Amino acid sequence: MTLPVVLVTHQPAEPIRDAFLGVFAGAAELHFLPELSEDSRRDALRSARAVLTYHPIRDLGIDALAQLENCGLMQCLTAGIDYLPFGDLPDHIAVAYNAGAYAKPMAEHVGAMALSAAKRLAGEHRLMKQGEFNQFVPTKKVAGMTCGILGYGETGREVARLMRALGMNIQAVNRSGMTDEQVDFIGTLYDVDRVLAASDVVVITLALTKTTDRLIRAAQLGAMKPDAILINVARGEIVDEDDLYAHLVDNPEFTACLEAWWIEPVRHGRFETAHPFLDLPNVIASPHNSAMTDGSLITAAERGAENVLRFLKGETPRFIAGDDVRMV
Amino acid sequence: MTLPVVLVTHQPAEPIRDAFLGVFAGAAELHFLPELSEDSRRDALRSARAVLTYHPIRDLGIDALAQLENCGLMQCLTAGIDYLPFGDLPDHIAVAYNAGAYAKPMAEHVGAMALSAAKRLAGEHRLMKQGEFNQFVPTKKVAGMTCGILGYGETGREVARLMRALGMNIQAVNRSGMTDEQVDFIGTLYDVDRVLAASDVVVITLALTKTTDRLIRAAQLGAMKPDAILINVARGEIVDEDDLYAHLVDNPEFTACLEAWWIEPVRHGRFETAHPFLDLPNVIASPHNSAMTDGSLITAAERGAENVLRFLKGETPRFIAGDDVRMV
Repeated sequence: MTLPVVLVTHQPAEPIRDAFLGVFAGAAELHFLPELSEDSRRDALRSARAVLTYHPIRDLGIDALAQLENCGLMQCLTAGIDYLPFGDLPDHIAVAYNAGAYAKPMAEHVGAMALSAAKRLAGEHRLMKQGEFNQFVPTKKVAGMTCGILGYGETGREVARLMRALGMNIQAVNRSGMTDEQVDFIGTLYDVDRVLAASDVVVITLALTKTTDRLIRAAQLGAMKPDAILINVARGEIVDEDDLYAHLVDNPEFTACLEAWWIEPVRHGRFETAHPFLDLPNVIASPHNSAMTDGSLITAAERGAENVLRFLKGETPRFIAGDDVRMV
Repeated sequence: MTLPVVLVTHQPAEPIRDAFLGVFAGAAELHFLPELSEDSRRDALRSARAVLTYHPIRDLGIDALAQLENCGLMQCLTAGIDYLPFGDLPDHIAVAYNAGAYAKPMAEHVGAMALSAAKRLAGEHRLMKQGEFNQFVPTKKVAGMTCGILGYGETGREVARLMRALGMNIQAVNRSGMTDEQVDFIGTLYDVDRVLAASDVVVITLALTKTTDRLIRAAQLGAMKPDAILINVARGEIVDEDDLYAHLVDNPEFTACLEAWWIEPVRHGRFETAHPFLDLPNVIASPHNSAMTDGSLITAAERGAENVLRFLKGETPRFIAGDDVRMV
């Protein structure tokens, strides 16, 4: 029996390599592109039924992409694929994103940011250094808060589970406006303003698409509670950078927890902001590391590989990028 | 019918005054000391069956204490009563502390500190300001961690509920070495070293007593995991200040979350540390404000008043200070 060929476009770390081999054992012939000679490389590209990749253009190049004659699925290992130039990809290859692969670590990171903001941890530490000991200035009670989640997909629902465990009520928007989960409100992107107005904490877990690009501007920020906590773990572009900065300066009780940035190393080769967000006392910043906990890359790799396995068995793979999630 | 007299030794804010009046409606005659004329004050002291107080010595004075001839219960509104000079209190008055009155806000604060430390929020923000963008340095996964709780009373158990909701396993010590709750291990103070060695996060919610004074010294810190997170929301004195500072300097992966301090305004009139803890990158500091969320003082006041009501009805009041919780 000839096994179908699956091509991994990069050289993964040993535990991830092992995870791939484990998932495909007996079900596929696995090749790691950097390990192949030039001839084998050509064969592997021709025969591959599926490709596992972080970044197909960078790892394969346009010429190699054209050789993927038998490939039916390009499985990305990242959850967001807004960086992919879909126009350059062969039409016969479906692209799957790794939705929710990092949902658990990201939900913990969101919880850390929300609690840290509610309890003013960074701010009071700073004030203590200046000699202030504000024992009797109330912090926020988290239980009973309303958490608005923009993007109620895999990550959004995992965030909801954690926030619910902290005693928060959930209001959410997704594409369908429907969910089986226990929420106070579920709607679509048309309901964003309503959710923003009702929420003490707003978490953005949307994919960046033409529709969500700069979804949150001055008007939306103005619709939020003046002391709300806004957490963006998706993509910087979903929030208007200038509008957010102005809002933070004008509303010192408002907190922004920024994990996703507008210009950041992985996508742009550098970290850069148009305004000094990092110096504002009402900003909590993290370097887009919410997905990175010990072992999280292995979990994500397994999840991506299992989706490929689904495809090889003739089942429908999950999270195929339709036109609605294609950014460019 | 003559109602028993309950004396409140201070002038509470309106919502707390209302809470007291609500609890005792029809069950006691309530007097607020600062509202009384000198004569009424004398009568109130003589007739009071119970006293509700934040600080009996400061609010009443030694002379007034001697006039509490009919008083059977002094209900403190604070959870910790280590500051009380028991030797100066009349022997016929039982003293109750307000155990767990602030358990919920304190548990949220502990959760905020644990998550903030696990995700290195403050540290990475600081490094971003210095131009570092550490997207691929893993943070800690919280689910699956072991949380050791020293002092499994009202507050400790509330902390456990929150930590369990975050996916942590609980090891705890209390006075009895027993609990009905779902824990991986329960022991007594004799088991502290074992719990310290097993825990990723250690939370101190013990009362300060002769037994717990400087319970955590160099040897105990040395028994902990080198990258453990130590959270003290009880009393500074339970941890040796010099030993902790030395341990933090020697173990940069170890984090101390300090909410309770050695010299702090409410107990000592000033905030002071023997070492520059606030400047260490592996310290998260808060100004003993974990109990203070919107409404938490009202909840605590009601809880204290309900304990007094229990006493007036002839039931046994809860949380009577035995010799084992008396510090001085």
